Amino acid sequence: MAKGPVAQEVELSLPAPSLEDQRADEARLRQALEEALGGEVRIPLSVLRKLPEKLRQGGFEIKARSAFDGSTFWLQDLLLKETEHPLLGLGIDLGSTGVVLYLLDFKSGEVLREHSFKNPQIPYGEDILNRLHFADKPERRRILHEVTIKALREEILKILSPHPEEALVYIALCGNTTMSHFFLNLETRHLYREPYIPAASWIDTLKLKELGLPGHPEGLLFVFPNRGSYFGGDLLAGILASGLHQREEISILIDVGTNAEVVLGNREFLLATAGAAGPALEGGILSCGMQAAPGAISRVRIDPKTLEIRVETIGAEKPRGLCGSAVIDLLAELFKAGLLDQRGKFVPETLPERFQEIDGELAFILVPAEESATGAPIYVTQGEIKSIIRSKGAMYTILTVLCQSVGLGFEDIAHFYIAGSFGNYIDPQAAITIGMLPDVPLERFVPLGNAAGKGTIAFLKNRNAFQELREILNNLTYLEMNVRPEFMQLLTGALFLPHTDLSLFPNVARKLGLSP
Amino acid sequence: MAKGPVAQEVELSLPAPSLEDQRADEARLRQALEEALGGEVRIPLSVLRKLPEKLRQGGFEIKARSAFDGSTFWLQDLLLKETEHPLLGLGIDLGSTGVVLYLLDFKSGEVLREHSFKNPQIPYGEDILNRLHFADKPERRRILHEVTIKALREEILKILSPHPEEALVYIALCGNTTMSHFFLNLETRHLYREPYIPAASWIDTLKLKELGLPGHPEGLLFVFPNRGSYFGGDLLAGILASGLHQREEISILIDVGTNAEVVLGNREFLLATAGAAGPALEGGILSCGMQAAPGAISRVRIDPKTLEIRVETIGAEKPRGLCGSAVIDLLAELFKAGLLDQRGKFVPETLPERFQEIDGELAFILVPAEESATGAPIYVTQGEIKSIIRSKGAMYTILTVLCQSVGLGFEDIAHFYIAGSFGNYIDPQAAITIGMLPDVPLERFVPLGNAAGKGTIAFLKNRNAFQELREILNNLTYLEMNVRPEFMQLLTGALFLPHTDLSLFPNVARKLGLSP
Repeated sequence: MAKGPVAQEVELSLPAPSLEDQRADEARLRQALEEALGGEVRIPLSVLRKLPEKLRQGGFEIKARSAFDGSTFWLQDLLLKETEHPLLGLGIDLGSTGVVLYLLDFKSGEVLREHSFKNPQIPYGEDILNRLHFADKPERRRILHEVTIKALREEILKILSPHPEEALVYIALCGNTTMSHFFLNLETRHLYREPYIPAASWIDTLKLKELGLPGHPEGLLFVFPNRGSYFGGDLLAGILASGLHQREEISILIDVGTNAEVVLGNREFLLATAGAAGPALEGGILSCGMQAAPGAISRVRIDPKTLEIRVETIGAEKPRGLCGSAVIDLLAELFKAGLLDQRGKFVPETLPERFQEIDGELAFILVPAEESATGAPIYVTQGEIKSIIRSKGAMYTILTVLCQSVGLGFEDIAHFYIAGSFGNYIDPQAAITIGMLPDVPLERFVPLGNAAGKGTIAFLKNRNAFQELREILNNLTYLEMNVRPEFMQLLTGALFLPHTDLSLFPNVARKLGLSP
Repeated sequence: MAKGPVAQEVELSLPAPSLEDQRADEARLRQALEEALGGEVRIPLSVLRKLPEKLRQGGFEIKARSAFDGSTFWLQDLLLKETEHPLLGLGIDLGSTGVVLYLLDFKSGEVLREHSFKNPQIPYGEDILNRLHFADKPERRRILHEVTIKALREEILKILSPHPEEALVYIALCGNTTMSHFFLNLETRHLYREPYIPAASWIDTLKLKELGLPGHPEGLLFVFPNRGSYFGGDLLAGILASGLHQREEISILIDVGTNAEVVLGNREFLLATAGAAGPALEGGILSCGMQAAPGAISRVRIDPKTLEIRVETIGAEKPRGLCGSAVIDLLAELFKAGLLDQRGKFVPETLPERFQEIDGELAFILVPAEESATGAPIYVTQGEIKSIIRSKGAMYTILTVLCQSVGLGFEDIAHFYIAGSFGNYIDPQAAITIGMLPDVPLERFVPLGNAAGKGTIAFLKNRNAFQELREILNNLTYLEMNVRPEFMQLLTGALFLPHTDLSLFPNVARKLGLSP
């Protein structure tokens, strides 16, 4: 099959009918289009009905718009040769917290616009488990489905404007397994009960109108597949975006969301796992945590000598709180400055004026009340530090177990792709310093940004992605981390900064002058 | 691909999910079904939505109903193992005069019921050309489409009753090219204007609901393809029913409707043509003609010695008129009894009391007024005899030209399949006597009945028919009879009874003691 995006416009010059060539309009067009596309073409009734007039209006010169459903090309529409209409696709990353839309111009291959909004399911349950409980009754599951479709419909029309609905010919949507199920209104009761079975893993290409989504009447919808309840289409999209599944070298993809999800592999095998390593690293559990918005602290620097503290905020405004990307920074800087010891305990003696008890717990004051935008101090407590260390330790342990299970060391990993909004902002050096990521050369860390969203665009731009996804699913082995006996044992060592075994972090040890 | 009908119910015992087998319900079912069917399975949203509950209700024992669309199997529905529901298909022969429905039980392979009704387009034009003119404007074409769909909807519900709509999972419809176009509401303006181009030849499988037809929500609709404006899906269905396209021996299929349509060939080649040889042979133009109904004369016998005349009627009622099947009989009997000479002229001297002038034309009184049900005589005029002879001569000439064009004689033809309602009743001996069919052994003539209708059933019972139809279309060459120079020349000889060249009808000549 010829390379190309999942939707395309092909210009055709058909031989005019004559007594010597009495083929039907349909046969004439189908043959030319199948030759141009290199695959079987199906023609829906809507196109057959307008076909004779369009062909004769255009003197048998025509633009044919078709979309690939994984097996065949659907002829979606016909335009006169002189008509210039945009041909648009939409990638949707349906996150449980936020939803991101990417508008793709199929002709140029450019993402024209990006647009995000809050997941409308949140009022029915802050986290996924709450929503799953809520959705145990079909009529309530339907509510989650309907609010999702309604919000998507509105937001799609917004991002599409001023283009007409007809311009949107393909949507690719990814989400974790629960999100995909809510989106499609599939049964979710067995998703989170042993033995954790999704209703569907591979969703055959649907039509936009089947879901009530805006777009061309013949527009197609691809929902990314999943590999079980805990390994969703967002991760498969991430793999697609990273290209890890096509390389000879072995790499690791790390996605830190509510869970830490990790994939190790290359074009021959893929080993995936997930573990609870998430919310603390994203700042979600911090009393002074906030979303990435103006006033959120995104960077922290503490001079190891002078102990001078500097923070950077989004929009350079007065600080209001800490966003995810600052959490690892903060931990690393506290540690390097000696304000935190290897066991993760505050060392208040080093800078007593920055420590105080808040709600009966020792806390480090990053921004005093008088410097903050809210008039309240911005701080992190000893308990919160413990949670962050537990998360970073879990992450490191997951990476260790995964590599060990195939007999590899970190030095064998060509690249570490860091996905998630997190991945854009994380400072790999800081993550190494606290022992969250392994102590390998910095250039091996590649931020992917929103890998899930990028995966939906990668899909739309490459009709071979259907096949690639099938191969990814075939090649993917899921490693149940919770049942690995070595996990808890290895985790213990990783709960230190950077680790009890400093030989694993030679560069950090050398820089900070730590001795075993 | 395994053999079987286009729709089937498969009983599956799926392995129950466990921590060791966490495949999604969809993956579990799809894999088992693809193995059972030997092809790719697609699962629509409606089935995905009910899948988890159905599987668990049935303890992972399930009946899966699927239908083949020519490329893939669509999983249409799931039933519990203990549920017994009929699985029905419908064949539709959409004739321009009458429509016939055949209800097929997919499980037993039996046709359960047959039901016919008048084509509801007739009020908009008695013959096809009138309707085509009427349909030149899209809003009027839509009327023809809508009355057709409305009537089909009503009649389908009748033939289906008392089964629920859901039991009907597949419809196969054939008709001539114009009928298919009206049915689908495709443009017909170019069908009957040079160079006579259909909007579509091959129609990809549709869903019943796309046409507003009753049946299962996921039910499929196959519309037979055509090979140009003058060679419709009804004929392709006839070929399918005859099996001519699969044999090594060369046969001929003859369908006498409004036109005479003839196909010659075998599994390697098919040569088709059509010509005006129809209405007179069907009795359509006779002043005393009528449809096959109680009181219609279906057989005529004239004793060559006593000149005693006997007629058989449908239902053994008093005669009301002549139906199609009696026309050829009548001509042959008149000829054999010396009441008609070789040039087709009445010989009133032989039986003066049976001849009289009607409306200034000589007529033969088959049933005197006092013996008929209407109180009026049943007769045939000299002019009508001429028309019938012209039609029979055209038919013979078409067969001759077709055979000559591939260098064959009639003796090389293994079988003559006679299709059309006509084909059921025609007496081949009578047809040979008048020189309409060639003088070959009687056992070579095979009546097919409603071959078009049988072809729709043959399709429903054999999913390989998709492929067979594609091959028929590929192998089919259409011979334009009107432009053949030898046609008119050969026709002249065929306007005699049986022919000017009696060496072509040696058996007839011998029996009747004719000499050249």
